[in-house]
Amino acid sequence: MKPSITKGTRDFTPTIMAKRNYIFSVIRGVFQKYGFKQIETPSIEQLSTLMGKYGEEGDKLLFKILNSGDFAANLTDEQLLERNSIHLTNKICEKGLRYDLTVPFARFVVMHREEIAFPFKRFQMQPVWRADRPQKGRYREFYQCDADVVGSNSLLYEAELIEMIDEAFTKFGIRVEIKLNNRKILSGISEIIGEADKITDITVAIDKLDKIGIDGVVAELRSKGISEEAIKKLQPILNMSGDNHQQLNTLKEVLAASSVGLKGIEELEEVLGYVEMANLKNNVAIDLTLARGLNYYTGAILEVKALDVAIGSISGGGRYDNLTGIFGLDGVSGVGFSFGADRIYDVLEQLNLFPAETNQGVAVMFAAFDAEGIKYCLPWLRALRGKGVSAEMYPEPAKMKKQMAYANATGAKYVAIVGDNEMASNTIALKEMATGTQETLTLEQLLERF
Amino acid sequence: MKPSITKGTRDFTPTIMAKRNYIFSVIRGVFQKYGFKQIETPSIEQLSTLMGKYGEEGDKLLFKILNSGDFAANLTDEQLLERNSIHLTNKICEKGLRYDLTVPFARFVVMHREEIAFPFKRFQMQPVWRADRPQKGRYREFYQCDADVVGSNSLLYEAELIEMIDEAFTKFGIRVEIKLNNRKILSGISEIIGEADKITDITVAIDKLDKIGIDGVVAELRSKGISEEAIKKLQPILNMSGDNHQQLNTLKEVLAASSVGLKGIEELEEVLGYVEMANLKNNVAIDLTLARGLNYYTGAILEVKALDVAIGSISGGGRYDNLTGIFGLDGVSGVGFSFGADRIYDVLEQLNLFPAETNQGVAVMFAAFDAEGIKYCLPWLRALRGKGVSAEMYPEPAKMKKQMAYANATGAKYVAIVGDNEMASNTIALKEMATGTQETLTLEQLLERF
Repeated sequence: MKPSITKGTRDFTPTIMAKRNYIFSVIRGVFQKYGFKQIETPSIEQLSTLMGKYGEEGDKLLFKILNSGDFAANLTDEQLLERNSIHLTNKICEKGLRYDLTVPFARFVVMHREEIAFPFKRFQMQPVWRADRPQKGRYREFYQCDADVVGSNSLLYEAELIEMIDEAFTKFGIRVEIKLNNRKILSGISEIIGEADKITDITVAIDKLDKIGIDGVVAELRSKGISEEAIKKLQPILNMSGDNHQQLNTLKEVLAASSVGLKGIEELEEVLGYVEMANLKNNVAIDLTLARGLNYYTGAILEVKALDVAIGSISGGGRYDNLTGIFGLDGVSGVGFSFGADRIYDVLEQLNLFPAETNQGVAVMFAAFDAEGIKYCLPWLRALRGKGVSAEMYPEPAKMKKQMAYANATGAKYVAIVGDNEMASNTIALKEMATGTQETLTLEQLLERF
Repeated sequence: MKPSITKGTRDFTPTIMAKRNYIFSVIRGVFQKYGFKQIETPSIEQLSTLMGKYGEEGDKLLFKILNSGDFAANLTDEQLLERNSIHLTNKICEKGLRYDLTVPFARFVVMHREEIAFPFKRFQMQPVWRADRPQKGRYREFYQCDADVVGSNSLLYEAELIEMIDEAFTKFGIRVEIKLNNRKILSGISEIIGEADKITDITVAIDKLDKIGIDGVVAELRSKGISEEAIKKLQPILNMSGDNHQQLNTLKEVLAASSVGLKGIEELEEVLGYVEMANLKNNVAIDLTLARGLNYYTGAILEVKALDVAIGSISGGGRYDNLTGIFGLDGVSGVGFSFGADRIYDVLEQLNLFPAETNQGVAVMFAAFDAEGIKYCLPWLRALRGKGVSAEMYPEPAKMKKQMAYANATGAKYVAIVGDNEMASNTIALKEMATGTQETLTLEQLLERF
């Protein structure tokens, strides 16, 4: 039998794992430094927890788990012969795989609310599964790295997330632009131009400004049935330019009659105020076309774009006013952010930014050429390990060439070679793999070296 | 809607996560120090990879994933109305959840054999899923932490695994006995007493020696149809005592006529020889009743028993001669070991052995009492974070009591309190939470402290 791997899933070899662990460890370090605490939730959730939370399309993309035991026994002839896969699924599946980390987190908060100290700053780094059509860069199993704060309306947290983003990408060495919008401003714009129900059409059109120009955007707005008067009112926004403060001033004029719009501007200003104090390494820019998560974000909307690689958004987030409402706990506002580990991986790889230490080879590999040589090495090996130094013994008295090939392939930093001369003089010959230089050391000298 | 969690699965709160991470990090540290490299395989495997690898019972315990899309459309009336859950499963499920880390590892080795340098020392720490009946200490989702070497027959690796076990449990502070057996010795015993096909009955009976005494064991062997002559030949083994070497000598006499038995003794002797050189902290004892994995282990069998807690085996492993044979790659011998993270957790908890640093609170939480106070704190907060110190701001000017309760609940080590006096004198009041002592510090003094 020739084995295969499921479409859209991946094996991670040691080399890739080391790089992935580097990404996770940078992100984890930033999360922890900012006071976020890790939780984990089960991979398997009740379908009743998951269904209806991601739209109709999302329901289809959930991986469903067949009930154990004799699941078909109690189905009626009618139910069976209908051959309706959706109806049948409801009868034979009660559980599904986690689709994101947000809904399980909401469930967690509701179920553990008595033990949690609010504001609750949690981070979570776990795989999620989606029965998507696999394609380049899109997988059926992938990691999400989320940080959220729930139980506080303070806009300090929006600023804190932006600082975390700035710090993480600075550590990665990836130059980014952090884009910031506010759902209330989008609501204000729709309100002012009298098209409150067309907020999505409007933002989708504005989003194309760079590509199709003002005339193109206007044409698209017309095609969506937006009135000439509304389009006219949009002009100052389409023509908006200058830095964040100049844009905020334009918006204040345009949205002067919308209380929700003004609230959005006020929130943006407060967040930008905190952020400006922080001397970030990366630029934070207002971007009104940012419309991710329009269904659930109620305040800030955040997105990160890499400057030196043509790739979509590499991370994003925002504020939602009622995360846990779906599970019966109202009034818990939250703001959160998700690092896209797979995309960050691709960017680091393309820009050749992975640090050299992601090589996970041992510090010292011992090579001997007969059984006696191996026995000679063992106390040296144990002495190194006793000092906390990673080390291993090539397990057979194989030819030098074979042992060196293994050391090369596994990334060993040094090879300690033991032949008759070394045994006679109570030494080893330590060869540095990167340079090829070799020196003869006693055990004491070897231990001093590491 | 009141949310619930799937039976047999668990949420891990920050406190529990910190303890689990401690366990994983000790184990990972040992694995890496011994030259093992991490891989990950997908949670979802083809059912064709998984089915038939864990026995009939195992097939039932696999979580199966319903095919996406219109899975019922092409089923015939006959197939549907048969209501045979096993037949239907074959038609509507192609994928399942990982049941252990060993079979996916075998698949990995076969699929990546061209990129792998053998001997391949891999470790893997990932969850596995079993549709078992949930009960105390048994979960449907749990982590396995496996280390295996494939592609070498060297018994140095058996010794290395034992040293790793010794080191990990020494780090945990858990006193254990490491039990060692060899499948070839069990085969030899069955051969000598002329009951080669009853190896399982014999080891099960011997296993009860402590509880039911020699007479009980003899009675059980009789009830299994084992001949009086065979039982007589078993006597020296049932009466075996003394240290490892004395036991090996007894075995050599009893198994003198069995070449496989003598080979097993020789292997045990070689492994014990290496281990004795290593000055382990824990005792390694031959235990002929150790019969785990009798279906697949072909050489060493290993098990770890905690000495100070009444709990089953907390880790185990052994050598298998043909791991990858099921996937068409013969001649790849391996030896491996699995740490039982959940059981280790229970032991550490019962013996109160978790180190204090598993508390994941920030070093400093800032507390202010008005908007101005909060703004005053932000540069201090950023300065600490800039030094790599974990710190956070309580996000609202709440009452002292509420802020201190948050600091307590989240495990903050210090609270930096800022009132009017502090702002006037350009200081903060730093309160150590454990002792209650408080001192006034300038920014410079604060930064020096951490």
